[in-house]
Amino acid sequence: MPAIQDFYPDELAHCYGCGRLNEDGLRLRSFWVDGASEARFTPKSFHTAIPGWVSGGLLASLIDCHGTGTAAWAAVRPEDRESEFLSARRFVTASLRVDYVRPTPLGPELVLRGQVRSVSGKRVVVEITVSAGNEVTVRGEVVAVEMPGSMRPPVPGNPRA
Amino acid sequence: MPAIQDFYPDELAHCYGCGRLNEDGLRLRSFWVDGASEARFTPKSFHTAIPGWVSGGLLASLIDCHGTGTAAWAAVRPEDRESEFLSARRFVTASLRVDYVRPTPLGPELVLRGQVRSVSGKRVVVEITVSAGNEVTVRGEVVAVEMPGSMRPPVPGNPRA
Repeated sequence: MPAIQDFYPDELAHCYGCGRLNEDGLRLRSFWVDGASEARFTPKSFHTAIPGWVSGGLLASLIDCHGTGTAAWAAVRPEDRESEFLSARRFVTASLRVDYVRPTPLGPELVLRGQVRSVSGKRVVVEITVSAGNEVTVRGEVVAVEMPGSMRPPVPGNPRA
Repeated sequence: MPAIQDFYPDELAHCYGCGRLNEDGLRLRSFWVDGASEARFTPKSFHTAIPGWVSGGLLASLIDCHGTGTAAWAAVRPEDRESEFLSARRFVTASLRVDYVRPTPLGPELVLRGQVRSVSGKRVVVEITVSAGNEVTVRGEVVAVEMPGSMRPPVPGNPRA
């Protein structure tokens, strides 16, 4: 099954957190499952905070990218998803809030679930939980906005004006 | 000059963002300069969001670690800093807020500056800016709390009960 990030065009697929073309990145992949977005990620041993627990910065990175992916999906009409209409939308984070409810153990696969709270023009708000086992360890909120044209990199054959 | 993180004891110096003993980490180093905390970091080429701009997740990681380092410093009496009293304090993030004011260009060295807003028992609030050149691109707030004893790893010769 393709991930939401698989629809990002090549020139926008280098993100450290979720770019499929970033060989040194985390390559998070988000899916739409039963009315919510879901991503799974198993941190590496070096993604530690205090030994035994996952780095809060890594958790923020995962929430960030899962949020912008969910936002792109939510901004496209259901009948236009998994098409060039999804490819054309790319969101960036305007603000991020992360509440570390309890320490996240390093070792188990983590599950991120995103719920779309609002879609208003080019602004989408997504609430995200991170769970280890059956326990929610982190709650996040991403306010995502559609990427300004000034951030778009030039595409060969279609240079930015 | 030693960084605040240089006073973290070895068993607490493996953080992905700022642990001096984490060979695969970012190794952020924070200093106290003129009544504020300061750290400098030059992202790698793969720390990209959209090509040309720094990953929002990386920026959140830097803010997170700079915040907890600043909190440890602020929690210790001035005359006890740079001593075993600082080594004994270690803070973790309870909540993190990051506002991406404008895109952060990938390339220049970034400067983080932290201002302590409040110290209340085991809870410290730190406001942080990230600047590229002379422009503030990101504003963050870290609510840090002293690490609970349950997170402390066992130390050889001094095992956790």
